[in-house]
Parts: sequence; structure tokens; C-alpha cells
Amino acid sequence: MVDQNSSSSRVSVSELARFIALALERAGLPAHDAGIVAGLMAEADLQGSDGHGVIRLPQYVKRIRAGGINTRPHIRVVSERAAMAVLDGDNGMGHLVVSRAVDLAIEKAGVCGVAWVSTRASNHAGPASLYVRKPLQHDMLGLYFAVGSANHLPPWGGSEMLLSTNPIAVGVPAGNEPAVVLDMATTVAAYGKVKAKAKRGEMMPEGWMIDRQGKPLLDPARAGEGFLLPIGGHKGYGLALVVGLLAGTLGGAAMGRDVVDFNHDHTTPTNTGQAILVIDLKAFRDPDDFKGAVDQLAREIHGSQRLPGVERIWLPGEQSAEKRVRYVKTGIPLAPGLVIELNELARDMGIGALPLMEAAHM
Amino acid sequence: MVDQNSSSSRVSVSELARFIALALERAGLPAHDAGIVAGLMAEADLQGSDGHGVIRLPQYVKRIRAGGINTRPHIRVVSERAAMAVLDGDNGMGHLVVSRAVDLAIEKAGVCGVAWVSTRASNHAGPASLYVRKPLQHDMLGLYFAVGSANHLPPWGGSEMLLSTNPIAVGVPAGNEPAVVLDMATTVAAYGKVKAKAKRGEMMPEGWMIDRQGKPLLDPARAGEGFLLPIGGHKGYGLALVVGLLAGTLGGAAMGRDVVDFNHDHTTPTNTGQAILVIDLKAFRDPDDFKGAVDQLAREIHGSQRLPGVERIWLPGEQSAEKRVRYVKTGIPLAPGLVIELNELARDMGIGALPLMEAAHM
Repeated sequence: MVDQNSSSSRVSVSELARFIALALERAGLPAHDAGIVAGLMAEADLQGSDGHGVIRLPQYVKRIRAGGINTRPHIRVVSERAAMAVLDGDNGMGHLVVSRAVDLAIEKAGVCGVAWVSTRASNHAGPASLYVRKPLQHDMLGLYFAVGSANHLPPWGGSEMLLSTNPIAVGVPAGNEPAVVLDMATTVAAYGKVKAKAKRGEMMPEGWMIDRQGKPLLDPARAGEGFLLPIGGHKGYGLALVVGLLAGTLGGAAMGRDVVDFNHDHTTPTNTGQAILVIDLKAFRDPDDFKGAVDQLAREIHGSQRLPGVERIWLPGEQSAEKRVRYVKTGIPLAPGLVIELNELARDMGIGALPLMEAAHM
Repeated sequence: MVDQNSSSSRVSVSELARFIALALERAGLPAHDAGIVAGLMAEADLQGSDGHGVIRLPQYVKRIRAGGINTRPHIRVVSERAAMAVLDGDNGMGHLVVSRAVDLAIEKAGVCGVAWVSTRASNHAGPASLYVRKPLQHDMLGLYFAVGSANHLPPWGGSEMLLSTNPIAVGVPAGNEPAVVLDMATTVAAYGKVKAKAKRGEMMPEGWMIDRQGKPLLDPARAGEGFLLPIGGHKGYGLALVVGLLAGTLGGAAMGRDVVDFNHDHTTPTNTGQAILVIDLKAFRDPDDFKGAVDQLAREIHGSQRLPGVERIWLPGEQSAEKRVRYVKTGIPLAPGLVIELNELARDMGIGALPLMEAAHM
């Protein structure tokens, strides 16, 4: 397969994580916290979630420096029952808050069978799939809902952007096959993908965005003049709305007009909300039976009849799993524009440039 | 507004429920169970879910008479923890099994904050929204996932129907505004809507179904020659898959190739699976604050700027709520073809014809 980024610069995941951690530490995060956030951001790039990895570093640094992030948060449970908790993130980095939420949900699900943890006063936490992968290691399933960090979606029929791309992720353990990991924005494209297109200087396909007159908008540099389209029309709008109510309103986080556009406002606390639901497989049935059934389904899908011209049928999460394997070997591809931007940031912060891998013909 | 069914026959909800209950009782259900199922089926028609109400009666009766339904099921918990249970429906009517699951989830959520109940050995239970409305009465939120009762959806890029329309429903309580109730198939159209189109002799819009060559299929009478399309392409396929894993595989119910097509097979136990998640609002925050926030969001959405030509922006569940109010007053419209079919059924079973309302100009 020809990698669309084969002409890009490449960096190893460990060097990338080190670079991000150093930048975050210089910006003001304690070393331990910087390491956790950097590990998750590099992991995002490693699995191909290039709209949510190091591409966000300049923005995070800007927000931390502007005082928009609490670098010494007191993350704490503010309400709790056996199978739930609300976690106040004290305006800390979202990656730290959600990691804590996931750990707590895993612990509670181990006792009660299922557990739900909501966050409030959190922040942008990167790709949803990161957080549903952790329960898999405990023979648990994870469901994740988040309020996006900027409103790009109007209600169906409207032109006022009251909703975000509010993503859903679901992780389901398998046996020999890769885990099923769905991570989807409720819009046709996530805004991170629009940003990645802009960074690569590419046009968007029709159907991603429309302008305020309802006409297709193709140039990602003009993204500010239009809005994203929901999947399935009114259905995607409905999904975005209920995901926002579950991830935001339920836990007391921002939703609707209260959502702060973190692309343009670097100081106002975002009061971002996320929610994680963890389901302990062992409470339901024998985990091996379950994983065997998932494997069988995956094989049935892979082996099923294809439409003319289709080479392979994918399950959710398989392409990420393959990218992960490939990028561990070849390094993570970075767009030339992004490398320039990251090295400008490095100079500005007085840290070394991003150590790229030697060019190689692969 | 001109009702598209204004020329149809109409029936009051109480007469409809009585008619259905009598038919189900004659078919072999105990009177009490027949009453519960009939009430839910009539409620489906009352809220405009016309693909899942009385239209299904002939099929249910056929299945009961053929021995495909256990009319004396021993519905019981087969595994349980504080915040979860798996309920074996013993091949009883789905409406009975899911009603029990919802009651149990409400009880457990009242203690633990959230609770998940899975069903196995259940059957088709009508529209998902019925089951997320009950938690609303307890200041609780409901999420519902189900495996559809026939496979009409291939994996994305495939042409073999391994998946169903696997619906999702979410119910969120509001204060003065109607509750937000999302009920959506993960396909562009639910198969029940295809059947309703066929019954009304109407063509389907492009985008609902394609044939095995990938060409648009518009005639619902030819539905057997093609398959449904998922919302948002690969995203809807991913959603249908994970909903099936959550509603089916997790609880040990059928999924993938194991799903019995209950439109054509009236005797094989379907081993249908559903899952209900109930969230007790009171565990998270003050219910009045929450409901006030939902009201405010609803008002913001209603009052927001509209695209040219759009008269009103709807929230999920509002159209159902309005239909409910209207049909209580005017009666429930039934397509002429359906009335003929129901009266044939009545004759066949030796019960009275459906008592229609006097025609009136409305």
C-alpha cells in the first residue's frame, strides 16, 4: 500500500513523546503530568489519529502560557455512588482528567459490573479511542462520550453553531482478532480532520462542510465561514445533541452556547465534559466465550461478499491497529508544514528541534 | 399542517389497544400479558412509530400460532451484580421481556446511580423510544440498544447482510419543554419504515436502499432484492456493529449470522438481545438544575437562526410528542391496506372488526 504520507518527515513514537513532554514541561506542567499527556498525544499519532496528536501541541502550549489551563489541578470526586462518580478536573489538562475518570470507572465496574464516570471542568483530551482502549486490558468494554471543544455544528435546519462534533467511542475486546474500537465524530468529518487537511494544503471532499448559504465548502482555510454536516442528517444532529447532554449537561459541564471555542479563546476555562462507561465482561458471561464470538463475527465480516471494486472489508479500529504496527516500524509521518511549526515552537521554547528519522525508501 | 394520513381511517388509542389485546389473547397469550403488549403497541402508533405498532400484529399472531413464541415464559435473572443483570426472556414476547429489564434497571440505578440490564432469548419489542420514556418518570435518563430482528445491512463495502438496523434510543428528561427522546436506526431508514411505505403503496426516496449491484432501489415491494444503507457510510456500519455487540453478544443473544429473520421464519427462537442503561439524575446533580439546563438548550435551539426555507427546528422526540397530542384528539390514522389486513385477521380469529372512528373533516 502506498502511504499518502510517504514523502513526509518521520519521527519515532518515543522521540515524539519526549519532545512533547519537554515542551509541556517548559510551558509549565509538572514533569509527571507532562509525561502522561505526551504519552497519550504520541499514542494518538501512532494510531493515525493525526487530528488529535502533536498537531494540537502549539495550541495546548498557547493555552497553558495564557493561563487557560490549571497546571496544578486538584482533580477530585464531587459526587459518587457505587456505580458512578462525577469528577471535577479543576481546569487541568483533559488527558489527566479523563485518565483518572477511566481508572475510577474500571475500579467501580470491577465491583458493580458497570460504572459511569462524568467529568466537569476538564479540557480537550485528544482522540476518544485512547480512553476506551484501557478497559480492554481488564476484559472490560468501554463507551466514551465527549463534548467537543468548539461548536461547529448547527441543529438540523439551522445555521447557528450551537453544537459540537461530540464524539462517541466504543471499545470491545476480541480474542485473536484486533479489538473492535469505534471512534467517530457525529459529524461527517471531525474538525481535527479539517485542520489536518488545511495543514497538508488539501481540499475537503464535498459533504464535510457547507457555508451559511447551504452551499458546499471545500477549502479548509475557509472553515471559519461555514459549518460541519452531521451524519445521516437529522439523525447525526440528534446524536450530537444527546451525546452533549450525556457528556456535558449530566455532569454539570458546558453544552450549547456555553461551550468555549478553544481554537480562538485561550484563557476562559472551557468547563469541558466527558463521560466514560465501563462494562465488566466477566459479570455478563465467560470472557473467552464472548471474545470467541467477536472473533467469529470479525471473520464472518472479513470473509463476506464484497461490492464490485472493494478490496477489503474493515472492522472499526483495524486501520488504526495496522497503522500502529506500521508506524512503530517506519516512524510516524508528519506533514512538512507541521514540522516547521513544531520546530518554530521548539526554538521559541528553547528546546531542541524535533529529531526526525533518517529518510528511507520504504 | 395537512396530515399526510388525513384520508385514512382512524381509531382511538383505547379501541386499538383493546383490539390488539383481544387478538393476542385469542392467539394464546394470557390476558394480563396480552394487555401489556397491546398497550405498548398502541402507544407506538399513538406517537407515530407506525412501523412498529399494530402493523406488526399479523406477524406476531402468525409467530405465536406457529409456536415461535413462548406464551408462558419464565423470565428470569441469570447473572447479576449491584449495577447490572442479564435477563433470560425464555422466548417470551419482547415487550414483556424488555419491560421487565427496564423496571429492574430503574430499581438498580436508584441504588447504584447507573445500571445496565441485558436481555437474551427475547423477541422484537417495538420502537426503542417506548423503553427510554419510562425512566423519565423517575428523573432518570435511559439509553437503549437492540439487535434488529432481521439482517438488512451489509458491512461497509460488502453485499452480504450480516447486520441489522440495530437501533439506539436515548431519553433525557426536561422541565417545561418536552423530554428529549432520540430513537434512531443506524440505517438511513428503519426496515419498519420500508414496510410502512409498501403498505401505503409509496416509493422510497433515493438513499434508503441499494440493490446488489449498488444501484438505488426505490420500490419497497422489491426490498427483498437489496439492502439498507447505513448513516454516514462506514460510521453507521460501525455503530450498527457495536450496538449489536452491546445489545446481543454481551448478553449472549444472537448477532451476525445467528440473527433469525423473523419476517420469513416464524418458528425458530430468535434469541433477540436488547440492553437498557438507566442513569439516576439525582446521583449526578440537582434534577431541577439539570432540567432547567435542558429547557434552556431547547429554547436556544428553537430560537436559533434557520437556513433559508426552514420553518422550524425540531428537537428529537418533539414530533412524536406533537403526534401523540394530536392523535389522542383525532384518533390514530391507519392506512387503508392495513385496515383491510387487520379486519381479515379479526375475521380469521373470530373477533370483532377494528372499531373505526366516524369520518370527520379536520
